[in-house]
Amino acid sequence: MKALKTEIENNAQYLGEGIIKADAFINHQLLPGLTTDMGLAFAEKFKNAGVTGITRIVTAEVSGIAPALVVAQAMDVPMVFARKKKPAFMTGGLFSAHARSRTKAEAVTLYISDRFLGPGDKVLIIDDFLATASTLKALVSIVADSGAQLAGVGCVIEKAFEGGREQLASLDIPIISLACIDLVDQGKSFIVS
Amino acid sequence: MKALKTEIENNAQYLGEGIIKADAFINHQLLPGLTTDMGLAFAEKFKNAGVTGITRIVTAEVSGIAPALVVAQAMDVPMVFARKKKPAFMTGGLFSAHARSRTKAEAVTLYISDRFLGPGDKVLIIDDFLATASTLKALVSIVADSGAQLAGVGCVIEKAFEGGREQLASLDIPIISLACIDLVDQGKSFIVS
Repeated sequence: MKALKTEIENNAQYLGEGIIKADAFINHQLLPGLTTDMGLAFAEKFKNAGVTGITRIVTAEVSGIAPALVVAQAMDVPMVFARKKKPAFMTGGLFSAHARSRTKAEAVTLYISDRFLGPGDKVLIIDDFLATASTLKALVSIVADSGAQLAGVGCVIEKAFEGGREQLASLDIPIISLACIDLVDQGKSFIVS
Repeated sequence: MKALKTEIENNAQYLGEGIIKADAFINHQLLPGLTTDMGLAFAEKFKNAGVTGITRIVTAEVSGIAPALVVAQAMDVPMVFARKKKPAFMTGGLFSAHARSRTKAEAVTLYISDRFLGPGDKVLIIDDFLATASTLKALVSIVADSGAQLAGVGCVIEKAFEGGREQLASLDIPIISLACIDLVDQGKSFIVS
């Protein structure tokens, strides 16, 4: 995605310790055209990777919601976002798994109701960043517990230097990122590909 | 919005103490067609209310993100969602205000970076529920602090029995909800209008 690459080059910032500041277009402000195009790009790339018959998009709050929603729009299937705290309305059976948030430096538990994920589903997991893959592995575990089939993982930005792709390699499914960031200049700046 | 009314009647549930379980289409699972149509419905209703020249949509994480994003798509303007915890990337100047979350029974502080809201902006605040208006009033306060002009408030579902509309009346701007819920049968069930 050329527009995404340009946006990252112009408006993202490397803060050190693995943290990319992408609040101008992912984690705080969202640009409608760019965000909608992310959904279309994911749909096309997964189609080209031979992924068909998706019934549901799965993500985790907070910053996964927008990219997952635009993929749901592009594929016309429901999206479910894992909650990080169990809200008062979350009654009934649920799946859960633990993850660790890098940008908030805390352990979290992800919850998805068993009403919205089950053995009949063929699922794509979509998130904003592929970093250490901690959140993604928690979502993978929830999808497995539900009996649904996981068909692919998509992330807007992959931090190649954090090894998340290797963490997910044993799944043997397409892992698609729309842009990939690598550190250069002894970790002081980054390049986008 | 007839499709929303039908969805609420078929899939929402009143849990008591003011809490509506709407996780099948707002707070946990999102239906792409219905969600996209919410954005179009808000855009049309604000236009009919004489609201023009909007430059930015403002909401709060978590459940406000989806309805605010679809309004941003319908109006082709950026959206910014207030964060409830200050993430590591949130450096620089910011606006903040306190609110109380009903479904999570805790006080929260909302943060918006001063890079994404300012005196040149004409703003719509969009959220999932209009209940006691605690979150909405915090967003109103942030918009005022930023120097932006607030042109309207839109909520997917209004809980008429919680008085939020009255809390916002002094703003003298259009307050639009796509569906309105009232309690009947001595608070044991609800009707949608």
